Amino acid sequence: MSPIATHTQDTHHGKDLSKDPHVPAKASSPETEKLVINTIRCLGADLCQQYKGGHPGTVMGAAAIATALWKYSMRYNPANPEWVNRDRFVLSAGHACLLQYILLHLSGYSTWSLDQIKKYHAPTMDGIAAGHPEIEFPGVELTTGLLGQGIANAVGLAIANKNMAATYNKQDYPIIDNKVWCFTGDGCLQEGIGQEAISMAGHWGLDNLILVYDNNSVTVDGTIDICFTDDTSAKLKAMGWHVLEVDDGSNDLAAIVQAFDKAKSLTGKPTFINIKTVIGIGSANQGSGKVHGAALGEQDVANVKTALGFDPKEKFVVQQSVYDYFSESKSRGAKDEEEWNKLLEKYNKAYPEQAAEFKRRLNGELKEGWENNLPPKESLPKDPKATRQSSGIMLKSVIPQDNSFLVGSADLCESTFVNWDDMVEFQNPESGYGDYSGRQIRYGIREHAMVAVANGLSAWHKGAIVPVMSSYFIFWLYAAAAIRMSALMKLRFIGIATHDSIGVGEDGPTHQPVAFPLFLRALPNFNYIRPADAEEVAGAWILALKDTENPSILSLTRQPVPLLEGTDRNRVQFGAYIVHGSEQELPDITLISTGSEVSRAIETAKLLSEQSSYKVRVVSMPHYSRFESQSKEYKKSIIPSNKSLVVAIEPYCSFGWSKYAHAGCHMTGFGHSAPYAVLFEHFGFGPKNLAEKIQNWAKPKRNSNGNGWDLPGVGEFEELLSNQNQGH
Amino acid sequence: MSPIATHTQDTHHGKDLSKDPHVPAKASSPETEKLVINTIRCLGADLCQQYKGGHPGTVMGAAAIATALWKYSMRYNPANPEWVNRDRFVLSAGHACLLQYILLHLSGYSTWSLDQIKKYHAPTMDGIAAGHPEIEFPGVELTTGLLGQGIANAVGLAIANKNMAATYNKQDYPIIDNKVWCFTGDGCLQEGIGQEAISMAGHWGLDNLILVYDNNSVTVDGTIDICFTDDTSAKLKAMGWHVLEVDDGSNDLAAIVQAFDKAKSLTGKPTFINIKTVIGIGSANQGSGKVHGAALGEQDVANVKTALGFDPKEKFVVQQSVYDYFSESKSRGAKDEEEWNKLLEKYNKAYPEQAAEFKRRLNGELKEGWENNLPPKESLPKDPKATRQSSGIMLKSVIPQDNSFLVGSADLCESTFVNWDDMVEFQNPESGYGDYSGRQIRYGIREHAMVAVANGLSAWHKGAIVPVMSSYFIFWLYAAAAIRMSALMKLRFIGIATHDSIGVGEDGPTHQPVAFPLFLRALPNFNYIRPADAEEVAGAWILALKDTENPSILSLTRQPVPLLEGTDRNRVQFGAYIVHGSEQELPDITLISTGSEVSRAIETAKLLSEQSSYKVRVVSMPHYSRFESQSKEYKKSIIPSNKSLVVAIEPYCSFGWSKYAHAGCHMTGFGHSAPYAVLFEHFGFGPKNLAEKIQNWAKPKRNSNGNGWDLPGVGEFEELLSNQNQGH
Repeated sequence: MSPIATHTQDTHHGKDLSKDPHVPAKASSPETEKLVINTIRCLGADLCQQYKGGHPGTVMGAAAIATALWKYSMRYNPANPEWVNRDRFVLSAGHACLLQYILLHLSGYSTWSLDQIKKYHAPTMDGIAAGHPEIEFPGVELTTGLLGQGIANAVGLAIANKNMAATYNKQDYPIIDNKVWCFTGDGCLQEGIGQEAISMAGHWGLDNLILVYDNNSVTVDGTIDICFTDDTSAKLKAMGWHVLEVDDGSNDLAAIVQAFDKAKSLTGKPTFINIKTVIGIGSANQGSGKVHGAALGEQDVANVKTALGFDPKEKFVVQQSVYDYFSESKSRGAKDEEEWNKLLEKYNKAYPEQAAEFKRRLNGELKEGWENNLPPKESLPKDPKATRQSSGIMLKSVIPQDNSFLVGSADLCESTFVNWDDMVEFQNPESGYGDYSGRQIRYGIREHAMVAVANGLSAWHKGAIVPVMSSYFIFWLYAAAAIRMSALMKLRFIGIATHDSIGVGEDGPTHQPVAFPLFLRALPNFNYIRPADAEEVAGAWILALKDTENPSILSLTRQPVPLLEGTDRNRVQFGAYIVHGSEQELPDITLISTGSEVSRAIETAKLLSEQSSYKVRVVSMPHYSRFESQSKEYKKSIIPSNKSLVVAIEPYCSFGWSKYAHAGCHMTGFGHSAPYAVLFEHFGFGPKNLAEKIQNWAKPKRNSNGNGWDLPGVGEFEELLSNQNQGH
Repeated sequence: MSPIATHTQDTHHGKDLSKDPHVPAKASSPETEKLVINTIRCLGADLCQQYKGGHPGTVMGAAAIATALWKYSMRYNPANPEWVNRDRFVLSAGHACLLQYILLHLSGYSTWSLDQIKKYHAPTMDGIAAGHPEIEFPGVELTTGLLGQGIANAVGLAIANKNMAATYNKQDYPIIDNKVWCFTGDGCLQEGIGQEAISMAGHWGLDNLILVYDNNSVTVDGTIDICFTDDTSAKLKAMGWHVLEVDDGSNDLAAIVQAFDKAKSLTGKPTFINIKTVIGIGSANQGSGKVHGAALGEQDVANVKTALGFDPKEKFVVQQSVYDYFSESKSRGAKDEEEWNKLLEKYNKAYPEQAAEFKRRLNGELKEGWENNLPPKESLPKDPKATRQSSGIMLKSVIPQDNSFLVGSADLCESTFVNWDDMVEFQNPESGYGDYSGRQIRYGIREHAMVAVANGLSAWHKGAIVPVMSSYFIFWLYAAAAIRMSALMKLRFIGIATHDSIGVGEDGPTHQPVAFPLFLRALPNFNYIRPADAEEVAGAWILALKDTENPSILSLTRQPVPLLEGTDRNRVQFGAYIVHGSEQELPDITLISTGSEVSRAIETAKLLSEQSSYKVRVVSMPHYSRFESQSKEYKKSIIPSNKSLVVAIEPYCSFGWSKYAHAGCHMTGFGHSAPYAVLFEHFGFGPKNLAEKIQNWAKPKRNSNGNGWDLPGVGEFEELLSNQNQGH
């Protein structure tokens, strides 16, 4: 191990130290450095051994990397984990969370007491030392552990910093100038989402992003070369990154700090630091997959401790000198924030307008009056319009004037209508296409990373940035895992998913979602909204904009739909409401529909009423799970399934509709390639066919006195369009 | 345009032409070559213009590439598109399908008549010229169009070829020696799945794979450098590929053919050919995104034709000389197959055993007797076992002895129990880890590509290869889009998804699926099977192995579950059956459960019976949608929801259960990090709590005469565990 004392001299000689507040005036002794690193290793071994589970390997192998980060390289204030100009740390290799927890403890985050850390894998519900880092807890930027997500999250944080800096920083007022550190293993680099995010960061030249690769050459199933033989450094260079390498990252703290210093000074591109380490170093199975995700065993833990000069009988030992070692970082962070607060105070006076907006955004507020900017129903176009177009109208009335929104598309900006006049692109200024103040993000054809990047934008400081992203509906399926993470973290985004249902038409079954929307309905903390017309599109935007806690996807049509008389943006907020038929009078038949089929359901209702004496109600249900959360009374008043026959109409699979309907008109296969009008007829969604099918099904259910129904019970749901031939 | 005559001399001089049957003895005249390419361009313009939709840009820009492929480079026999030793062509950029359709027509695939091609975007249901290529139709290997999937499919085809060759080829008997050609745009290269697949192919050194990049520098939203600035050639080199480049790929047919020849001759690595083209060449908006996905307009089509020497008034013109040009390829293909048939005949005699197995596999049959190899219930371990372990027992009893199975894991081989003694890894022989005859595939941490690669394996020749893959359940969500494609194409795989539900335990909510399984239930053509114990695991394997049409996922536990008295592998085939309680007597209460909670439901049933006079039945429903497809009578006999109170118990969200149950015990959030036993208690899945909740709910529903129920109707489904605090 190189003595750190020598190193700091090497690194910082000839450099004006006053310019870099993070370089310690006096380095610690090599002995202390060693003790710190060994303490982390022994803690890792002990904490996994206590409940015989967890991931000790990385804690031990990457202890020096973590020490470098928290001691020398990162800017943070343990007393205020929410300080907005802190450096961000994202543990993309989330299973190594114990390493982060130990450092949060040692560096002085009061919540992370030794007692809390001991709850790692404990049989309790009240711990914060979860099996993967969770966003709820101080010092954790985002919940990670699904591999690759963290790299994309970090790219989002780096974009947020760049955009905030470009928007608010002024000469001598670097309000936002922090770095984003992302710790990755090989798993995140193998995952497609990681590679998408790396390509994005290189493209945008995000030089505030440092990706630290714990290259331990081991994966769960063996040595890494059984499955992964990319020349990663060369690859990252080809993807527009600076690349640094460190040979002995388990021991050579000096070299690591040097690389981190270098990375902080490099400009124009993000920096990738390829650091070779030995997983589980010092344990019997060091350097093998066996120490990745299993405790070492009592004997091995004891051996490790003995070898490192610790008493094998003592557990969870942290000497005072180890805490002392980090105390400097703690006071440095407090001073950093104090200075920043002073700077902000001066900024408030020098640039009151920008400062007010900055403050408003940190408070999580949108620009006032946005709801009034949405065009009222009476001014909406009367001719049939695709709901994707209507969404564009709403977007243009709210988004351009509020810097809170970072909008973007997976290469479908125009056909998803998320562009506006005079928009500036978020681009590397060198590119000539825009600059970092731009709010239109060209995500490229990388949907999965797009959503995970949005999670980073949203997590940067809750409410300060509202990401809006777009793609064709089916391509959101590529991002399913990231969407789930948004909902789990309660990080909002507004997703514009156009070309929904079989209305896609000619592109055919590959592009026609029939089951994916049902996943979004089942997902907790999620708004899946399928508006019927331009008025409901306004309602969907209002719902998504008002919900500061949950992400939303607006499910929109490619094909035109008429503006309906009964639609109401305010009622969209209830999830479902009566859009046709009497509100007072009990209907004989209730049709529930969503999105582009609501107009078809209304046509069907009219036909049914004409052809029979039935009173028919149509319920528009743009938001299934929002309706779920309404009172029993409201739900019964809208869908009286205990008195009226209820039929759902939606060209998705029927899964889930049995909750409210006695029968359904749905898809049983994947669709077909043909113009949408042909498809709707073919698959039975023509109003004439629907009316006939419903009437034939209803007729025998009239009860003996001729005005009530023998209502089907639970278990008797019928598919009325189950014989759709020629589909996939 | 370089005259092709000159080129063929350059390329083939000094080469023994007799060794390469694909090089034409006499090249066509430069005029003919030009006419062919221009014919393709004009057809593309006409076919998009007729219904004012489609993708003309690539047809025009890549006409020369396609000409090179179908005229000179690919081995195929239009008279028998299923010839097993044909070269495979995968159009990863599926939206460019019109180019493929035109070449299938010109090269003599009889199904692809000019009339059929004219149905591109036509308002009919009976065409085969779908908006994206579909597997059902001759000359199309797989349905593509969801970007990036095709590259991974092609990797699967290349693995299949390598594995079949290594298994069956003998000295002088190259039964399988074909190439896989994959045509890609930038979209597939930007997608994570594409990058995962590229990394795999490089790792395995698949030198039978040639990736042809139509590098037109344009994407939908503009020039490619607005979002994608990787140095793609350098990147592919770093990922273990040979890289070739062609400068003028829209015109220089000679250079393209030369590159293809070179690619066919290169060994040890797959080859990437970066071919610069001009999208929509010759049209007014050539080289811009405007010609990507929209017809050119009447005037521009006319102008293009005039410029290319065609009569602007004539449409769909193909001169006889164009057909003649390709006729040579057609007869060459017929000859190739004829020779191959002779070779196979000799092989049948020389190696009868291998030949018989080869034939069996081409017939889509598994090795006889596999079902008897599965251990019978009485020999299954009596002590509680995780269903993932039981699955390992079944796998080992069937998989090792049948070459039909290509097994693999996303770096979780051991903990998903898909390994076996003496297994050989599918590896580049150079690696020292295995060889191409190996049947254990190290997919790395690349789940999305893993499933799409399996689609390629499965599509190689239907039934010849049965891919088996594994990962933790939640990581299958990364592959959702590829899983959907498997179901859409009806390509089977057997997916081993371990660590399901909150039983994952300490890894916490990131790893605990609560909604994703519901997507798999909703998906058409898909087997989502959640077995309750080792016996049902046997049933799940039988179901998956017998279903030659549909992909399956076996949803398995990390935690141990007991072997249950009432489970029955044969009844698993019905989707659901009575596992506890009388089959004849009508139950008061019916509990439906799945997987690891069936044993909890049985405990609950016992408690309920003890504590009250209720007769309680427990139904195990390992396969929801298989049960859906049973007769009404069977369904009612198992779940008498018109007479019995029905409660579903499953630690997923309740979505979908209202179809059969009046109430449910489910998750309302994402879970928590703690040991599984703690979680099940906390979230209310302890039998004591379940019994209490169910009893309290049931009691007031007793009707006045005291032995029947006032059954809740549709719309009255209740969540009995809706107040789960401390979850996410």
